[in-house]
Amino acid sequence: MRDAHRSPIIAVIGGSAATAEEAAAAEAVGRALAEGGAVLLCGGRGGVMEAACRGAKVASGLTVGILPGTDRSQANPYVDVPIVTGLGEARNAVVARTAQAVVAIGGSYGTLSEIAFALRFGVPVVGLRTWEVRREAHPPAPIVYVDTPEKAAARALELAR
Amino acid sequence: MRDAHRSPIIAVIGGSAATAEEAAAAEAVGRALAEGGAVLLCGGRGGVMEAACRGAKVASGLTVGILPGTDRSQANPYVDVPIVTGLGEARNAVVARTAQAVVAIGGSYGTLSEIAFALRFGVPVVGLRTWEVRREAHPPAPIVYVDTPEKAAARALELAR
Amino acid sequence: MRDAHRSPIIAVIGGSAATAEEAAAAEAVGRALAEGGAVLLCGGRGGVMEAACRGAKVASGLTVGILPGTDRSQANPYVDVPIVTGLGEARNAVVARTAQAVVAIGGSYGTLSEIAFALRFGVPVVGLRTWEVRREAHPPAPIVYVDTPEKAAARALELAR
Amino acid sequence: MRDAHRSPIIAVIGGSAATAEEAAAAEAVGRALAEGGAVLLCGGRGGVMEAACRGAKVASGLTVGILPGTDRSQANPYVDVPIVTGLGEARNAVVARTAQAVVAIGGSYGTLSEIAFALRFGVPVVGLRTWEVRREAHPPAPIVYVDTPEKAAARALELAR
Repeated sequence: MRDAHRSPIIAVIGGSAATAEEAAAAEAVGRALAEGGAVLLCGGRGGVMEAACRGAKVASGLTVGILPGTDRSQANPYVDVPIVTGLGEARNAVVARTAQAVVAIGGSYGTLSEIAFALRFGVPVVGLRTWEVRREAHPPAPIVYVDTPEKAAARALELAR
Repeated sequence: MRDAHRSPIIAVIGGSAATAEEAAAAEAVGRALAEGGAVLLCGGRGGVMEAACRGAKVASGLTVGILPGTDRSQANPYVDVPIVTGLGEARNAVVARTAQAVVAIGGSYGTLSEIAFALRFGVPVVGLRTWEVRREAHPPAPIVYVDTPEKAAARALELAR
Repeated sequence: MRDAHRSPIIAVIGGSAATAEEAAAAEAVGRALAEGGAVLLCGGRGGVMEAACRGAKVASGLTVGILPGTDRSQANPYVDVPIVTGLGEARNAVVARTAQAVVAIGGSYGTLSEIAFALRFGVPVVGLRTWEVRREAHPPAPIVYVDTPEKAAARALELAR
Repeated sequence: MRDAHRSPIIAVIGGSAATAEEAAAAEAVGRALAEGGAVLLCGGRGGVMEAACRGAKVASGLTVGILPGTDRSQANPYVDVPIVTGLGEARNAVVARTAQAVVAIGGSYGTLSEIAFALRFGVPVVGLRTWEVRREAHPPAPIVYVDTPEKAAARALELAR
């Protein structure tokens, strides 16, 4: 599935409202992913998404934002290529399908839906202070939890399909 | 949001592969929802979805299935109105938005994405032997866990917006 | 593809702003489709969509509206089952895929996109004072043009797959 | 709407089966758009889409493909950034919304749906041997027809919002 001639596309997902700690982590992850040669994918908005894009641009990476709304001006200023879906939150499925690995940082229910879709589609998920999910009689969800942005980016680059 | 002149639409979500116990629970929930005057909404496929529709039809309820694929013949035989989306798993967002309450029974990651979307959209979620989700520093998810199909249907009918 | 045990689902498509003549035609088509045993599908909003639903309800038919937005209160009052997609105009693809035949009445570019999707999906299209499309070196589009609402409903009922 | 700091995104739309003449035109348009500084957007598949991407890569442009399916390997080899939607033909709405101008070359009903969406969204459409649409009592559709690839690219670059 992974094409030799294309850069891997790795998503950073998380809330549009981020704590200072989450934003710092997202920026570090975005920078490390770009330094590792990945295209940075996200939902295009603020918070964790904006911080991740900002980090990627520090390393001169390419950033793509899959926007829920109908207006490209809703993209954060560090998005190079705004994809304007008009699909609302259903765009979360597009983020998860397009990514070859996902790094989840914090987040609320929208982020949880993206984690769930990534798991559904077999896309590797790396988690940094984010959701834990469990169901009795269901195998554990294969989320790779890490405790630093550096490890998050490194694991995502390794796991990208 | 709830219109007096329309029947409430309540979704039953869960896996397309269900255990015998899950299928029995889904059938009982579907029947009780129809007896309570609700339209039964689901993802249109087999397993929990089919069992819930079968139960609703025992009580002569109306059943609607939001199909992921492009072929209406993929609907289970108890779906009255197959909505053929062709959207793949992004249709999960449509199920969650259309429902005025959701009953989750078991399920895998697709079901988890529907729970997440319902929480994101403010749609009440009733859970029966299904996912638990938690994140440190995030308020607990307002999933109403119950232990019988009867309670699941009763709570969903009460909570439907 | 057509299941013996289900009522055929037939869409009436057209503008949310309709002339008096278009609304009268849509109401007559909706009524005749319901009398013919079809479920009336539409985009759920006003104008031609509302008139078609009103006609279907005169004949006690079932009406389903595939809404673009996120709020079921945007459905016209004659929609029995509002499907709340949140997908914006991409919901036009869902209308065209779900329908077993389409009647197009007037309309603007949204209606044109639904006609195009129906043609793309092989869904029969009956046209009443609506778009004509042509491309040199392309076979003529198989739109069945009629000049009365009665003929529109009759042809759609015949052609429904 | 047009951001000074971003390259304009211009879509080339047309059939996945293209004549030799259409493919040559699409390649010339893709090349001229990239030379003009645009990001080349398309549906990611073969025919006109592939030819346009190939042309853009000759000029070292960036190419983005909005794929209908679930597998990035369906992207043509000249797509730098495959967006894997899994939405089927509903992805046509995403292509039309994301583009700041559209060049339509030949095409069948899928292309017609993209033209219709672009018109619906107010995105400028330049046509080269493609669909003509008309409806009595409706203002003429503002499609700018041209007769050479050079003019198509030049007009699209001028009109991009």
